[in-house]
Amino acid sequence: METKYTKIPFTWPQGFKADGVHAGLRKVKLDMGWLYSAQPAAAAGVYTTNQFQAAPTKLTKKTINLKHQLQAIVLNSANANSCTGAQGEQDAAQMQQLAAAKLGISADLVGVASTGIIGEQLPMDVIAAGVEQLQLTDNTKVTEAVLTTDTHAKTVAVTCQIDGKTVTLSGFCKGSGMIHPNMATMLGFVTTDAAIDGMVLQQLLSQATDTTFNQITVDGDTSTNDMVTVLANGAAGNMPLTTASTDYETFVAAFTYVLGELAKKIAADGEGATKLVAVTVAGAWSDFEGQQVAKAIVGSNLVKAAIYGEDPNWGRIMVAIGQTDAHLDLTAVDVTLNKLPLIQASQAATTEVSKLEAALAAKVINIAVELHNGNGQGQAWGCDLTYDYVKINATYHS
Amino acid sequence: METKYTKIPFTWPQGFKADGVHAGLRKVKLDMGWLYSAQPAAAAGVYTTNQFQAAPTKLTKKTINLKHQLQAIVLNSANANSCTGAQGEQDAAQMQQLAAAKLGISADLVGVASTGIIGEQLPMDVIAAGVEQLQLTDNTKVTEAVLTTDTHAKTVAVTCQIDGKTVTLSGFCKGSGMIHPNMATMLGFVTTDAAIDGMVLQQLLSQATDTTFNQITVDGDTSTNDMVTVLANGAAGNMPLTTASTDYETFVAAFTYVLGELAKKIAADGEGATKLVAVTVAGAWSDFEGQQVAKAIVGSNLVKAAIYGEDPNWGRIMVAIGQTDAHLDLTAVDVTLNKLPLIQASQAATTEVSKLEAALAAKVINIAVELHNGNGQGQAWGCDLTYDYVKINATYHS
Repeated sequence: METKYTKIPFTWPQGFKADGVHAGLRKVKLDMGWLYSAQPAAAAGVYTTNQFQAAPTKLTKKTINLKHQLQAIVLNSANANSCTGAQGEQDAAQMQQLAAAKLGISADLVGVASTGIIGEQLPMDVIAAGVEQLQLTDNTKVTEAVLTTDTHAKTVAVTCQIDGKTVTLSGFCKGSGMIHPNMATMLGFVTTDAAIDGMVLQQLLSQATDTTFNQITVDGDTSTNDMVTVLANGAAGNMPLTTASTDYETFVAAFTYVLGELAKKIAADGEGATKLVAVTVAGAWSDFEGQQVAKAIVGSNLVKAAIYGEDPNWGRIMVAIGQTDAHLDLTAVDVTLNKLPLIQASQAATTEVSKLEAALAAKVINIAVELHNGNGQGQAWGCDLTYDYVKINATYHS
Repeated sequence: METKYTKIPFTWPQGFKADGVHAGLRKVKLDMGWLYSAQPAAAAGVYTTNQFQAAPTKLTKKTINLKHQLQAIVLNSANANSCTGAQGEQDAAQMQQLAAAKLGISADLVGVASTGIIGEQLPMDVIAAGVEQLQLTDNTKVTEAVLTTDTHAKTVAVTCQIDGKTVTLSGFCKGSGMIHPNMATMLGFVTTDAAIDGMVLQQLLSQATDTTFNQITVDGDTSTNDMVTVLANGAAGNMPLTTASTDYETFVAAFTYVLGELAKKIAADGEGATKLVAVTVAGAWSDFEGQQVAKAIVGSNLVKAAIYGEDPNWGRIMVAIGQTDAHLDLTAVDVTLNKLPLIQASQAATTEVSKLEAALAAKVINIAVELHNGNGQGQAWGCDLTYDYVKINATYHS
């Protein structure tokens, strides 16, 4: 398939400004930031399925659902404003109002995102001072200000041609632990200067999330805060995109690429991870079952620990596949590991163990599963399970 | 409630013999064993839900289902005879026949259990030599021969009065990794001299397993081999138990106690574990949801790592509860940790952190959840997530 988008160095699309500052929530690192569009943008969001949705997550969902428009998003790291009761809801609303006042726009056009420790009240004096510091610049500090245990900022940008206009899509995200189905501790932000209807954008985001962010897992836990939001401000000047537009598929491909790259960056930066594990499944009964099997493999602690140990323990992959309820031909499963046959017809392949061990020394482990039981496909991304994962999570709070 | 059974030092019930030997599957440790009843016993089993059920597991299920009778079980550790294809099925059948021939009984009365590495063929010369060594003794070596990464044998025995007769129930098990719902890498064996119909025994086993073995988790993986079997040979001389028997509830209580103790021993001996985590849930919408919430908490890597770090990170318990689909009153969750208030009305309790940290130094961590949303209850058991878990599982194969 022809690639209709081009990866570019990270930059903001036309009409977007941003900033990041050290407000004082963290000791030294940047901890607050914002995104701003010169004009109100079409907006869409997907949100955690955890029943204890955090105050900022609930507020942003409510705000976007008003008319699928936002003009700014204000965010902080270090404190998730989650499990903070009525006070937490007041604080999220105040954070929204402080940003709106500084920007001179309606509070109904401001989203709020928080990530960090659960269960502590936001220090509103620090938040207020942080908002006061924020400026409308072209820097990318907001991509750092959102980080918690992440080891680096995660960004991606592409351009594509829509309607004869150059459209830019820029995404950044955070997340390295508590990453599992359905918006785990993960925040994703995509900005684009494409013109597109808010409801079309919402549907596209929901679909693309299912095959990208919802197919990564670090530890199986789903956080209270997480969401992916998209702002499309139309500054590129294209005719507003609908599903019937000539270039709609180009936009879908570029958008899905941006989400997929962000998702993989989160998996590779999983807490304590030393390797990215990428699983592709073919020959499944359905795409749903293909995704289910892929996710079961990247989600298995035993598989993850074996990969960390560079041990080609193929039986654990079989265990992971077999504990799904996917339709299987029990004697027909083939698996390759970085293109070397690992499992053939549900039994050990004849590849020498030393070759498999050598393949496992790589930083990216590609596991390809062929179920020979249909045309369904799936992909998922995860990471190895390491001493450092335990260390990070045994001591995060203290 | 009056306790109607008495815990006793481990012993075999009347009419049972057993033995364990070093056949040579492992370097030094015992690796084969058997159980034998002087007369055919009523038998029941529960089996892994993993789709790749191992050859011995399938064979034992088929054998028990013939007429719910067994007279012996032969077992080995070190090799699971799983994902071994047609050869594996032949080998399991041969292992059954070898034991039957040595005992002079029908092969249809012999169960087979294997545990260990997946995907390697059983060395049948070693198995045959092992069967040759096995004797009918009163020793308890079989409780050691079944172990893999377990750090010690897990046994429990009780007596109770049924119908004026003293009945003994004796259980042993293995399992320390890949422990999750529905018969994970775990083998459990219960022998009793009670007289009870095989189908009644089967129903009782299935029910009692749901609230015991199926409520423990070490790492969320469900193995290919695992099962719990019960043999009841009637040697105690009681009138055969039915659900209408006067003392049936006494037997149920004793039997459930035996299964529960074995389950807890597995959780406490989880790979690399330093602490047993016991969760009780009250006030749930239903017992099913109570069990679901309890299991979500013991199954969370983040909760497990925090407990290892002796860190009272209560937000992770909220995350675990919230990611279930149990009916919740989102503002009414109370949790205590070793009887100290940890969460009150879904927010941090006022207990000093230093007291909570001190409580977490204990070897047994009791987490009690009150959902205030019904009368349902649940329990689950697990362990902390430690450096050693990763170490054991990064290097198990090699």
